[in-house]
Amino acid sequence: MLSFHSHVPVAGTLEAKNRMQHAFEVLKDEMTSDKVGYYKLPTLSLEHLQTLKAIDTSSFEQIVVIGIGGSTLGTKAIDSILSLNTPDAKEMIFFENSDPLTISRNLSKIDKDKACFFIISKSGGTIETTSIFKTIINHFKLDLDGEDNGRVFAITDHGSPLSRFAKHHKLQEFNIPDNVGGRFSVLSAVGVVPLAMAGYDMNAVLDGAQELIESFFKEEENHLLQKANSFYENRQNQTINVLFSYADSLENFTKWYVQLWGESLGKIDIEGDRVGLTPIGLIGSVDQHSFLQLIIEGPKDKTVTFIKIDDFENELTIPDISLYAIESTNFINNKSFNTLIGAQCDATMQSLVESGVNVDSISLDKISEKNIGALIINFELLTSLVGAMLKVNTYNQPGVELGKQILYKNLENI
Amino acid sequence: MLSFHSHVPVAGTLEAKNRMQHAFEVLKDEMTSDKVGYYKLPTLSLEHLQTLKAIDTSSFEQIVVIGIGGSTLGTKAIDSILSLNTPDAKEMIFFENSDPLTISRNLSKIDKDKACFFIISKSGGTIETTSIFKTIINHFKLDLDGEDNGRVFAITDHGSPLSRFAKHHKLQEFNIPDNVGGRFSVLSAVGVVPLAMAGYDMNAVLDGAQELIESFFKEEENHLLQKANSFYENRQNQTINVLFSYADSLENFTKWYVQLWGESLGKIDIEGDRVGLTPIGLIGSVDQHSFLQLIIEGPKDKTVTFIKIDDFENELTIPDISLYAIESTNFINNKSFNTLIGAQCDATMQSLVESGVNVDSISLDKISEKNIGALIINFELLTSLVGAMLKVNTYNQPGVELGKQILYKNLENI
Repeated sequence: MLSFHSHVPVAGTLEAKNRMQHAFEVLKDEMTSDKVGYYKLPTLSLEHLQTLKAIDTSSFEQIVVIGIGGSTLGTKAIDSILSLNTPDAKEMIFFENSDPLTISRNLSKIDKDKACFFIISKSGGTIETTSIFKTIINHFKLDLDGEDNGRVFAITDHGSPLSRFAKHHKLQEFNIPDNVGGRFSVLSAVGVVPLAMAGYDMNAVLDGAQELIESFFKEEENHLLQKANSFYENRQNQTINVLFSYADSLENFTKWYVQLWGESLGKIDIEGDRVGLTPIGLIGSVDQHSFLQLIIEGPKDKTVTFIKIDDFENELTIPDISLYAIESTNFINNKSFNTLIGAQCDATMQSLVESGVNVDSISLDKISEKNIGALIINFELLTSLVGAMLKVNTYNQPGVELGKQILYKNLENI
Repeated sequence: MLSFHSHVPVAGTLEAKNRMQHAFEVLKDEMTSDKVGYYKLPTLSLEHLQTLKAIDTSSFEQIVVIGIGGSTLGTKAIDSILSLNTPDAKEMIFFENSDPLTISRNLSKIDKDKACFFIISKSGGTIETTSIFKTIINHFKLDLDGEDNGRVFAITDHGSPLSRFAKHHKLQEFNIPDNVGGRFSVLSAVGVVPLAMAGYDMNAVLDGAQELIESFFKEEENHLLQKANSFYENRQNQTINVLFSYADSLENFTKWYVQLWGESLGKIDIEGDRVGLTPIGLIGSVDQHSFLQLIIEGPKDKTVTFIKIDDFENELTIPDISLYAIESTNFINNKSFNTLIGAQCDATMQSLVESGVNVDSISLDKISEKNIGALIINFELLTSLVGAMLKVNTYNQPGVELGKQILYKNLENI
């Protein structure tokens, strides 16, 4: 279960109410008209789980994922969180960057006979992904039409070059709906298939996501509209939105959030103005010793959303030991680390509220599949709402094209 | 060797020249008067390397470091970078956060008979560090006065509670100079001792740092003054400073930078105003698929500094394979990943320059101990220069005290 709490006053002006109502209608239209597809993924993706049942995956001990950006960030986030309470989950190895040292190190970890390989790209033309895939084919002498045919899977758009490649070699293929963009695709085949193959209960993840979608469209998640409106109203002065998660395992989730928020909202709006909000991911308590000073005493240009785990389901307790000359720390003896990290989150939140920072929080009763599904949808809905208020195209990324063109031109001349 | 390149016009006004000269004099005074100690660490820390020679470390295969914030960030950064070209480096295990799941997992990785333990805290009162240290003592039944006496080391300020604890148990102790703050302490015993014990050539790291310090104070690093002045002059509009590093192994370095920049400059200045610049760490090429869109089309509130490795010293090459239907990617065949990632960095930089973003770059000819030492000093000097221009106390962190007081009060009531 997720609980939401905001220290921001509820917006009650007619203008705010109209803005929230309008944004809600935009999302409802995106959903019902199928202009935007992620709203229906929690039910649509169930078919992939059915398909997987017919595939013998018992020999796969390593799940190798080749992709970048939206093709891996969400999958890594879920793997990092759920591996903690899924002790028999299979090892996932991600190839993303074109850094040769990482690629070489990852290659050395793989035992081909125990591995399956996912190549994930909406188009199939992603330069990092295809270059790494070629390297893997070469390194392991993969026989795509013979003995290795059953260990290579493609996840891509219908009719894409990668889809045609998969059909040519009769590889098992999973498709991403055309109306689902990369950074909104974690609950499509992109995340669901490799994570299910790794042993995670993706039915439960989809279930948690579906519940929040349904209650949102039943107008039972007003906090999301309020939160989006607060981001919108403060967009000129509170330009930086910090997600401060009190659990190490949420670090990859904050990276997923950074892509979702930054790439969706950083746009030229319909009036030709540059708009956008800058996301930052922090991990508590570690970043209390790093970034917190800047939030407290620096420019008041930040909002902070805390994510707190109420129960880590771990009993580790600070022993009742008194250290010579350090007896001043004994007041924490016999308390659990679960209590300590929760108290640290609460204290940091309270200190920010007292410093006048715009703060809200999301509490998870525990780390669970359903909670992760709901958490993903929470941020996707919030992103769509803010995008509707900012009047941008939330779902494209035209700004990165220039760099690609320069790259292709430069590489041809090397 | 580090090469610096800036796309920002050189500041030539009298006001800018005076500002740069004044900041230079502030740093020179900090150094000569010993008000600030990090400038002399590259020579002072040589004595720790001498001390280590007398300690038999041959039985240690795991270097366990217990600390948080400035006590670990720099050490992790160096370990991540140099482990790639130091194949016989020992495993380093870091205990930082109060997250019970991470602590439990780390405990299970340790073989006590092959491990040594560093407890690192300037004061000794850091709540995460002492709580974890007690947990380790209890978990491994460490006999501090008996058989385990030689495997536990303390790194702390002279005369601190932790220093008194170490003396009480006759533990080997290394001290941090009083005039060196946590986030400037990586080249003190804090980083040098555990990293040397892990097998890294810390003499070379200190050597690289010393060379840059000397040339800076000989007024041979004018680019640093120019860069600091540019940050200062644009502080109202370009409030976010991105460090975009094109190497996976630099991710922990960007985290070290985030603490250094955020916690040093986010302050109430001498006139009572809230000032500060917000640091963000990105990794290329991955974050081209995540954050770049926001920089290109979002608000023009960001500067970007690229770090590029000219030669990864890795020959991995994209094989000459043509994939059915994906032949459009063949133009990159037979090129090395080293070439690809370098070209990606150049293309992204060029696209940002063309978009009017304030861009500069630091190129490392390769990943080496000397280059890492220089890179650390480069950012420390830059931080001190900008702090002098902003008229803040670069070396304290008063803002985080409120949260600590709330934590102590709340925990007493649980």
